[in-house]
Amino acid sequence: MKIVVVGGVAGGMSAATRLRRLMEDAEIVVFEKGPFVSFANCGLPYYVSGEIAERDQLLVQTPEALKARFNLDVWPMHEVIEIIPQEHKVKVLHEGAVSEESYDKLILSPGAKPFIPAIKGMDQAENVFSLRNLPDLDRIMAAVTDQAKEAVVIGAGFIGLEMAENLSKRGLKVTIVEKAPHVLPPLDEEMAAAVQNELLKQGVKVITSQSAVAFESQGKKVVLEDGTELTSDLTILSVGVQPENTLAEQAGLELGLRGGIVVNENYQTNEPDVYAVGDAIVVKQQITGEDALISLASPANRQGRQAADAIAGLNRKNKGSIGTAIVRMFDLSAASTGLSERTAKLAGLDVSVVHVIGKDHAGYYPGATDVSLKLVFNATTGDIYGAQGVGAKGVDKRIDILATAIKGGLTIFDLPELEFTYAPPFGSAKDPVNMLGYAAMNLAEGLSHSIQWHELKQELASGKILLDVRNEAELSNGRFKQSMNIPLNQLRGRIGELDPSQEYIVSCHSGLRSYVAERILVQNGFKVQNLDGAFALYKTVLPEELDYV
Amino acid sequence: MKIVVVGGVAGGMSAATRLRRLMEDAEIVVFEKGPFVSFANCGLPYYVSGEIAERDQLLVQTPEALKARFNLDVWPMHEVIEIIPQEHKVKVLHEGAVSEESYDKLILSPGAKPFIPAIKGMDQAENVFSLRNLPDLDRIMAAVTDQAKEAVVIGAGFIGLEMAENLSKRGLKVTIVEKAPHVLPPLDEEMAAAVQNELLKQGVKVITSQSAVAFESQGKKVVLEDGTELTSDLTILSVGVQPENTLAEQAGLELGLRGGIVVNENYQTNEPDVYAVGDAIVVKQQITGEDALISLASPANRQGRQAADAIAGLNRKNKGSIGTAIVRMFDLSAASTGLSERTAKLAGLDVSVVHVIGKDHAGYYPGATDVSLKLVFNATTGDIYGAQGVGAKGVDKRIDILATAIKGGLTIFDLPELEFTYAPPFGSAKDPVNMLGYAAMNLAEGLSHSIQWHELKQELASGKILLDVRNEAELSNGRFKQSMNIPLNQLRGRIGELDPSQEYIVSCHSGLRSYVAERILVQNGFKVQNLDGAFALYKTVLPEELDYV
Repeated sequence: MKIVVVGGVAGGMSAATRLRRLMEDAEIVVFEKGPFVSFANCGLPYYVSGEIAERDQLLVQTPEALKARFNLDVWPMHEVIEIIPQEHKVKVLHEGAVSEESYDKLILSPGAKPFIPAIKGMDQAENVFSLRNLPDLDRIMAAVTDQAKEAVVIGAGFIGLEMAENLSKRGLKVTIVEKAPHVLPPLDEEMAAAVQNELLKQGVKVITSQSAVAFESQGKKVVLEDGTELTSDLTILSVGVQPENTLAEQAGLELGLRGGIVVNENYQTNEPDVYAVGDAIVVKQQITGEDALISLASPANRQGRQAADAIAGLNRKNKGSIGTAIVRMFDLSAASTGLSERTAKLAGLDVSVVHVIGKDHAGYYPGATDVSLKLVFNATTGDIYGAQGVGAKGVDKRIDILATAIKGGLTIFDLPELEFTYAPPFGSAKDPVNMLGYAAMNLAEGLSHSIQWHELKQELASGKILLDVRNEAELSNGRFKQSMNIPLNQLRGRIGELDPSQEYIVSCHSGLRSYVAERILVQNGFKVQNLDGAFALYKTVLPEELDYV
Repeated sequence: MKIVVVGGVAGGMSAATRLRRLMEDAEIVVFEKGPFVSFANCGLPYYVSGEIAERDQLLVQTPEALKARFNLDVWPMHEVIEIIPQEHKVKVLHEGAVSEESYDKLILSPGAKPFIPAIKGMDQAENVFSLRNLPDLDRIMAAVTDQAKEAVVIGAGFIGLEMAENLSKRGLKVTIVEKAPHVLPPLDEEMAAAVQNELLKQGVKVITSQSAVAFESQGKKVVLEDGTELTSDLTILSVGVQPENTLAEQAGLELGLRGGIVVNENYQTNEPDVYAVGDAIVVKQQITGEDALISLASPANRQGRQAADAIAGLNRKNKGSIGTAIVRMFDLSAASTGLSERTAKLAGLDVSVVHVIGKDHAGYYPGATDVSLKLVFNATTGDIYGAQGVGAKGVDKRIDILATAIKGGLTIFDLPELEFTYAPPFGSAKDPVNMLGYAAMNLAEGLSHSIQWHELKQELASGKILLDVRNEAELSNGRFKQSMNIPLNQLRGRIGELDPSQEYIVSCHSGLRSYVAERILVQNGFKVQNLDGAFALYKTVLPEELDYV
């Protein structure tokens, strides 16, 4: 059997090497239009700062090594420009010459390409780059000279933020421009706010709810919607990606959501001998069952391997993806899995959320830092829709656990049952993930009723009273404008100061004490709601709404 | 309602505080026979080295604070010496006087006590300590004087190892004596071997398959079975724990496995108004369904809370435990969840195992270190029985993920589907947990056939040939005594050097290349088995079996 693979990174190379392990006698040919195969795509930004010091470290494999180990015929700089499914042939362009190559099975792994918006003056701007591969990186590195002082990053998704961080670490003054109301749009606003605060703290300028509308002076000036002009020696465009579908479209393959290639559970396109994997295909979002485009390395690698299995006759089906991602932003990391509150609501789901702050390891052991987690779930069924986390350490672990829980169909009622590794340097007897489960269950079972940070203003305007149960010393960190303060430990003794005819909202610093206060007050006949996430979350997302005395 | 709680740590205090949140009007009384409640039990060893610098950091709560916040009546130095179930009363000893206290519901959380073997001369030995609580710690600290130079730790379980590490960091020369054939008996031998190697590297002496049989010279001399005499300024006895069941036994409560208190799913003993939680109770090992004693903080805390829920009328059942634990040993951590290979076989399960070495994060990003994982599973059903890990970093994350997978009933076929947070500083596109799944599936689907490290010698004696496919340069790390070497990349070209009438075992460094070699050879008609874990594992557990040139 002769198998041709189009695209020599992630999905394509996983397919080719797995195919070899399953079919020693097959002829396996890999065409890659770029100069490199199997390079460390996700590592590219870290070469900009020098954190990854050697360019060679980004080159995981070479055609020679792949020939020697896997007997693959790997051809870089060979662009497949046409598929002729009825003839089982592809046309390949190399150094200006076109040749034909036959196949029994064809695997497309073309990936996603940066979405390039039509911005005035772009064709005159020689300092505007996107980042997809090593030649892109080389162009960016050539522009990052000692003379380059200011950089603009347009788009504050995962890659945009990584470029902002690494350009900043390289010594450039960086401004991020994001069209959405907050950075890191895959996360919800209040979680992304922590990232935004860290960027500001590190000297990165952040402009949200704005697009670039023009490049002037050969790109040295970036003009925004509201007329703001930014000076830029170097501009990175990272406003999203789209399926690389030119070849598929030409071949008459069925395209779906936003141009993604449609495949069945065995990764077959509508041409049964043409398979497709990776960022270019439409997948099933496992939580909603809806079509989705998910551009991540982990699913791409799995899909490549599974397509190889399918071709080799093993029973393997694409079960879909949930999407799990993380970004390190200076001293902080931020991660998400599954659906955000926003996307879950857009999908029409019955959504509840809860926020918890815990420690990455036992508080009594040195070096413990906060881990802030958000759970998106259904309070009736207990189904978990998604989770997000931010913190200095241990965020990856908690989101990985929650991603596993989602994939395993665990509910909020299972989270407290999870038994984690606990010794003081690693965790706590009650891990923040357990705490998320307890907090969600308290909502589900009616033991607590919460309001969210964005609802507070309106609730207070409707006449409710905010009762802050922090200690007096904590008020110097900032205080709610309209609030009364009774420290939790005094609440039972001072309960007479409260008016049973009023409705109360309770808050503390992180939400633990306010829940205790809520339980005291409810059982004393008061109408009470708990401000989910409490002061700490509110200060992260709406610091300007607080008084500082 | 009046609820009396016996035992003011972990399970007992979780029960008391949860009860207050659910039942504001209840009278809740906590008796603790020791001087402190709610102290950081698991942090005690770290005070010995000074890593936890202040003794106060170990005191998480005080009776005064618990009164103020939770309106609990907490009585340290009050020992409940008798339960009279038919009268719903307990007798309490305090400063020599006995008083009676009535209850509507009683919660026992007595914990586990160190098992103290009968060793000759113990009564004369004033320098022999066990570690359960702060007074024990204070006694140990009084013995850790500048004059104390040598310490002996008897028992190399989790607490024994932590004490060994912290005494060593304190500057003492430490010898560990373990009765089992290897340290850390909850782990299998080859995984524990990495810990043993780390101890030796750090200057800790390890003696296995030996017990202490006598203390001489007031404990300054520890005599072992084989007559070895160890000098000791300070000896720690940590050979295991047993349920603290004296009170339960006296009250006529039903006892089960090794004296553990028998409770139903609602934590009720055979006296329906007497509940029990924590290390003292018999639980269901979720994987086998068998009775078990699991002395860990995480289940104890959950059980306390759930018993409170049951008393308050919420529907909450004890679903059992799987047991997850970790220990840091100098620059290494070692963790396990569920059953070991040994315990799974003892339970009569159909056991397969696979070993994988991956990196804690992307290999091309600075600072990546090895994570060695072992999966214990059923190759027919795919059920996961347990997992173990050792490495410098990231072991806690992988074992926590696998613990979640086990709790969620995921199989080996689900592990490749898990989508983890991947950015270069945090993980890899194929996480070691995904790799475990792939490796286990290869066995389950017959794509690979493996033998284990402990089977190699016999297999070679039976006439099989060991084919090492490492590169020549790697052979300087050590080589198998009986082996031939063909680097993987030369295998196809040199396949004629192999004898089709022979049976081969293939190995490389970590097992990735040997699997590729196995696939090449099998598809060329050879009979082949893969040495699971390969050279790296073999060198860890049987370094003396290798040649070093």
